This record gives sequence, structure tokens and C-alpha cells, in this order.
Amino acid sequence: MNPVKVGLLGLGTVGGGTVNVLKRNAEEISRRAGRGIVITHAAAKNLDSTRADTTGIRLGSDAYEVVNDPEVAIVVELIGGYEPARTLVLQAIRNGKHVVTANKALIARHGNEIFAAAREHGVTVAFEAAVAGGIPVIKAIREGLAANRIEWLAGIINGTGNFILTEMRDKGRDFADVLAEAQALGYAEADPTFDVEGIDAAHKLTILASIAFGVPLQFEKVYTEGITRITREDVAYAEQLGYRIKHLGLARATEEGIELRVHPTLIPERRLIANVDGVMNAVLIKGDAVGPTLYYGAGAGAEPTASAVIADIVDVVRALTSDPGNRVPHLAFQPDALSDKPVLPVEDIETAYYLRLQAADRPGVLAEVTRSFADAGISIEAILQKEPPAGSPDATVIILTQRVRERQMNEAIARIEALDAITGTVTRIRLEHLASN
Amino acid sequence: MNPVKVGLLGLGTVGGGTVNVLKRNAEEISRRAGRGIVITHAAAKNLDSTRADTTGIRLGSDAYEVVNDPEVAIVVELIGGYEPARTLVLQAIRNGKHVVTANKALIARHGNEIFAAAREHGVTVAFEAAVAGGIPVIKAIREGLAANRIEWLAGIINGTGNFILTEMRDKGRDFADVLAEAQALGYAEADPTFDVEGIDAAHKLTILASIAFGVPLQFEKVYTEGITRITREDVAYAEQLGYRIKHLGLARATEEGIELRVHPTLIPERRLIANVDGVMNAVLIKGDAVGPTLYYGAGAGAEPTASAVIADIVDVVRALTSDPGNRVPHLAFQPDALSDKPVLPVEDIETAYYLRLQAADRPGVLAEVTRSFADAGISIEAILQKEPPAGSPDATVIILTQRVRERQMNEAIARIEALDAITGTVTRIRLEHLASN
Repeated sequence: MNPVKVGLLGLGTVGGGTVNVLKRNAEEISRRAGRGIVITHAAAKNLDSTRADTTGIRLGSDAYEVVNDPEVAIVVELIGGYEPARTLVLQAIRNGKHVVTANKALIARHGNEIFAAAREHGVTVAFEAAVAGGIPVIKAIREGLAANRIEWLAGIINGTGNFILTEMRDKGRDFADVLAEAQALGYAEADPTFDVEGIDAAHKLTILASIAFGVPLQFEKVYTEGITRITREDVAYAEQLGYRIKHLGLARATEEGIELRVHPTLIPERRLIANVDGVMNAVLIKGDAVGPTLYYGAGAGAEPTASAVIADIVDVVRALTSDPGNRVPHLAFQPDALSDKPVLPVEDIETAYYLRLQAADRPGVLAEVTRSFADAGISIEAILQKEPPAGSPDATVIILTQRVRERQMNEAIARIEALDAITGTVTRIRLEHLASN
Repeated sequence: MNPVKVGLLGLGTVGGGTVNVLKRNAEEISRRAGRGIVITHAAAKNLDSTRADTTGIRLGSDAYEVVNDPEVAIVVELIGGYEPARTLVLQAIRNGKHVVTANKALIARHGNEIFAAAREHGVTVAFEAAVAGGIPVIKAIREGLAANRIEWLAGIINGTGNFILTEMRDKGRDFADVLAEAQALGYAEADPTFDVEGIDAAHKLTILASIAFGVPLQFEKVYTEGITRITREDVAYAEQLGYRIKHLGLARATEEGIELRVHPTLIPERRLIANVDGVMNAVLIKGDAVGPTLYYGAGAGAEPTASAVIADIVDVVRALTSDPGNRVPHLAFQPDALSDKPVLPVEDIETAYYLRLQAADRPGVLAEVTRSFADAGISIEAILQKEPPAGSPDATVIILTQRVRERQMNEAIARIEALDAITGTVTRIRLEHLASN
């Protein structure tokens, strides 16, 4: 059989990795796919800067030439960002080409539109590389766990954020200090907003939740909180209480609706996911039949991401001759069987909390604080009081609460901040036990 | 579209779980598959003992009636063991039916014959549930990592063995004691040979290695060692040195051939897989592009295994209309592209070692022992010497070595056992760092 011809948009880190891995493992890959896969045409803004071996590939700077090339059967979009990626992908689909993309922003924001176009034209859009890099977690949820009602999932899905939190813990360093190092090492962008403010994780969580619960992509409804306000003290106090702080994407199906939230989270240190360190990613998924399963690996980087891109290409090659109606649906569930379960506002979610507050170091203050919690109907799990440092009138009090609605906690915190004995605001970090039920 | 009709062989733990999950999640599953899936016909030796809700299922005690039922499109084999499972599966294939099985013994021993028959008749045999229960690890390797040259994999793939080792470590208990408890809890069979002697793990490793490296199934060539000789002292000494003892299935592709081995293994305690405890399973896979990835979950049990069985049924349903040549190959690689790379004899494998020996407690003995290792060209990584207990003339010496060929270690141990100062035999447990390269 003739090799399948692939057109590539973008020759940056992931594009270069894809060219290299496809070439290096050509024999291994065609032994699996039963057919050769060759990149025949590629476009990139800056052709000189690529480190890939592009011998035999027709190169150009006009991405539309690739998308309109009648020889190309599969277009691989590795440009990133919303535009021109969206327009190019839609054009490829209209031209009857299958699309493979690593672009989480594009899928999270424009996936509903893109998948509708793909169905109309009988082509597939594959996006394994958009979430958790090389870990085949989309495939695991969409196919491997197809028997399950997914109850919840929790993922470390931003390597930069996890690297920063790991360094803060291991070396007792401050956020800003580690961020600067991550930028120097190339783990963090010059503008780190997408990573440290949780936007990148929210893109990925949007996709995971959609394929887990069979709801449309709803990026705009994700509650998103970054790691910029986590201090090394919080990391150390959490550790003294037996917890690690991780930046998690959490999705949970409840009776009332879907929780979608990205925020720093305390996790018991014995959980496997609490021990996922550095730039590594992991997703923990709880299905009603299978119980908890976890998927771990590199969440970014040239070759790990290329690994997912090429797996998608192989899947598309296998599906070329199949009836489109029998292919794995883009969002795991058949398009006419998506659910309209609402996404819950963050005030309606229930979680446990880690609270840090500055309280006057005199008798009766702790009693006042605990009474405020009791009055609000919030149970306290643990209290840790630190002597004031020399010269300071205030002691630091750390409180772990049991699970409570966010709305109820907001009210309790407002009341506590109003107490005379309390200085400044109360720091809160959510805490999840991630137990199997 | 009409629902797909499934025939079930066996209504024990996994069979009952499959009936229950298919029924409970019928809506969820058909929203994914785009088509209903119903069990119409089931056979079991003892119909009275099943705890599944078999309403609407035609029941009988003759498995051949199911296999020959013209209405049944997919036969699910959950009897276990070699025969009559093999004959039934071959008959189903000859009848043009697709087969889903959870039977690792059957696939490891007779898979080559079964897959050849399936190809001849244009049907699929799916076996995700045969390895690591509900974890979709076959799918991950066969499809998710299709871009990679797999370098090695290491798995905790027997829950009973892992439960026993975890209890020995957590509670400082003896092997025999924990085994008795595992039997009482139902984690271990009355005859625990398959679990504690590593045969079950060897079945699963055979399958994993075949799909990872593209070699035929070669169960008879797996080096297999159980956990029966691990003492609580070994577990404790390993811990003092920063290691956990896990019963691993290991497969590695080297220049000279394939390593296939099941044995107790020391692993650095910081590795994620060293922290997989109790009855849980995990498989760590190193691909050349993706790097290390890990898959974790329940390796056994009614519903976790049913989760994998049903995922396979959904896959088969999707592939019903596809050209057989384009389906995912049974052993990941196209049948005419399997490699004949040899499986290495255990003497040719290279690993590090933990050694425990009893040595006379007098000056010069340690020097004698270390000189023997030096003479054999073996480097020592660490030595731990324990004072003799009151009344004993011998001290316990623990030695960690660097990597060395098994053959070379055999010779060194023979020389050391011949020393006057050494009492009894040297205990050896292999040690793997499982670092990413």
C-alpha cells in the first residue's frame, strides 16, 4: 500500500520532534500501522530556525499551501494559539482532510465548532497531544474506560506549575525565585501567565471533562486560580500536616451539575499523585466500575508530544477506510448524546480547606476563631499554631477544615476577617483527599 | 441500529461483573458506542451461584450452545484456564464471531495459534482484561505509544503478590503469615502457586513484551522467580538502604535480544512505582520518544476487570464495519512484521543485586568477601553489617552491587559460599533503578 501523506503546519519544538521521531522510528511505526507514513509538505514562518531533518519534505512559508495540497491526506496543526490555527483547521476539514492537532487552546475554545465541521465533512480531528503531552490519557478515557460512568478526575496537567511547586517544597524556595529559574531553564515562557495563572490547565481540563462526562466543551465556565499566591510557608505548613500542595485540574460529576476547577490543592502525601514531581504530569480518574486509575508521564517537550501526535496519525490511518459513524466520537460520546448537565458556579462546590491567618497572640483568640467556624457550621480537622516571630505581635494559625460549600466558607472567612484579633486577610487553599470514593 | 448481541462464557466473578456493569451503565455505554450492547446468551457450569442479574439472558450450561448461536456476534470468554477455553475460542472464531477474553494463561500460551485463526476468519480477538485488570495498558502500548521504540517495561502485575509484600513491609510480618491472611480475605487462591511463584505475572509479562517489542508470545522463555523466599528481614534491610522490594515483571530490548523476567526486585523508594501498594497494579513503560510513562489501577476484581472486557466489546463493535486489514493488530505489530529477536537466557541479563550472607564475626572476613567481589570484577555500591544476635557466631552482611551479568554473579556467589567464614547460602534479590534511561 502507498504511504499516507501528511502535511505539517509549524516546525517549532513539537513540529521538529514529530519530523524526527517519524523518521527515526519509520520502520517500527509502519510495522504497527501496516502502512508507511511520510511528511511530504510542511510550512513554517521561520524555516531557518528548525532543527529537524527536513530532507525530502517540500517546505514553504504559506500554511494554506499545505492545507490546500491535494496530495496531503492528513494535516497536522502544530502552530498553537487560536488564529490562524482555527481558520487553517476549518479549511483543511472543508478540503476533506483529517486533522491532528496538539493545540489545547484551539480545542478548548473552538472544539465544538471544529468537530461539527469534521462530522459534516466525514473526517476525524484527533487531539491526544493537546492534553498531558505524551500520556495517552484521551485514549484511556475515551476508549479504555468506555464502560464506566466517570465520577471525577484530578490532574497535574501543567508541567511548569508542578516544577515550581516541587522546587518550592524540595528547596524551601520562594515562588518568584523558582519562576525565574524555570524561565532560564526554558520550562516557563517569558510571559508565564498561561502556566502560572492556570489558563493552560483550564484548557486541558475543559477537554478532559468533556470526554469524561459527555458534556460540550465549556472553557469559559472553568473556575481558574493560579499558583502565584502560594508561599513557601504554606508549602512547609502543608507538609507538617502530611500534605503536598499541587496545582490540580479537577472535574467532578455531582447530582446538581459538573464541577470544573483549577486551583492549588492540598493532597495527602501518601497518594500516588502527590508524589508526581518536577515537570511530570499525571491524571487520576475515578470510574464507577474500574475504581481509581492513574496515568503518568511527560506532559510537554518535543518528543513526548510528538509521540502523541504520531499515535493520532496512526489511529487516523487505521480509520481511513472505516465508516465515519463507527469511529471513536471526538468527545467520546456520540454528538447527539451529549448531556446538558450544568457546570456549577464555584460557590456551589464542596471541598475541604487549608486556611492560614495572622492572629493576635493573646488568650481567647483561638476560641473566638473556632467559635466563628462552629457558628458557620464548619468542622475543624486540625489546628496548628506557630509562635509569633521575634518582634511580631501576631501568631500564625493554620486550620484544616472538613468539607464545606465554598459559599459557606466565604461567609465564615468574611466574619473571621472582621474580628479585631485578626490581621489582614485569610489565605485559603483547597484540600482534596482524592480517596477512591 | 440494532443492539449488538453478545454471548458470555462463564458467570463467575468477572462474568457477573460484566453483566452488572453492562446493565447499570447501558445508557452511558451506548452514548459512547453509538449502539446498544446486550448479552443475549450465557453459559456457566453452576448457574445457581451467580450473583448477577441475568434477567433477559438465555442461560444454559453448554458453552458450545453460546459459541454456535447464530445470533451472537461477539463471544466473551471468562472461563479461564487453558481448556476448554482454547477449543471454545477457536470454535467461536471458526463460526466468524469476534472474541473478547480476560484469559491471560490462554493468550500467553495459545495466543499465536488463536490470532492466526482470527486472521484467517477475519475476526478480532481482544484481550485488554488479560493484563492488569481495568488498567487500559494494552491499548496504551499498542495504540497510545505506537510512535515509540519501547526500550523496556516493568510492571507490578500480580495484586496478590503486591498485597503480601506491602503487608510484610507495613507491619513487619512474615510471608507465610500474610499469605494466610490474603487467602482468608479472598485475595489469594486456596492454591496460591500461580500468584506467589510468579506464573500469573509471567503470563501477563509474555503478553506485554510481545506487544511492546513485536515478538511472538513466548511464555516458556520467561525466567520466573516467586516471592516465597523473601523474608521480612530482607524487606527491612532494603528499606534501611532506601529501597522497596516489589515483585516485578521486567522486559527489556537489548542489542543481543529480549530480556523476559519475573522476580522480586529492589527499587529506589522515590520511584512512583515503588509506592504502588496493596492489591493495586502499575506498569512503567519507557519509550524512546515519550520517555517513561506509568499506568496504575486495580489489577483484578469483578468490576475493574469487567471495565476492560466491556471496553474491548465497544472497540470490537466500532471495528465491525472496518476492513480487517486496518484494525489494530492483535500483537500491536502486523503479523508479517514480527521480529525474531531471541529471548535472552537469564545468565545473560545484567542487573544490580542485593545480597544477604551470614559471615563469621571476626576481623578480616569482610575484606575476604569484598576481595572475592573485586576479583570477579563486581563493584560494590553499599555494605551494611549487622551485629550477630546474642549467642550467634555469625553477623549478617548486606551488600548492594552495581550492575553485572547474572553469569558473573553466579560465579562470584559460588566462590563466596565456598569461603570458610561464610555460613549457608547467599540470598540474592535483583535490584533495578528503573531510571528513565
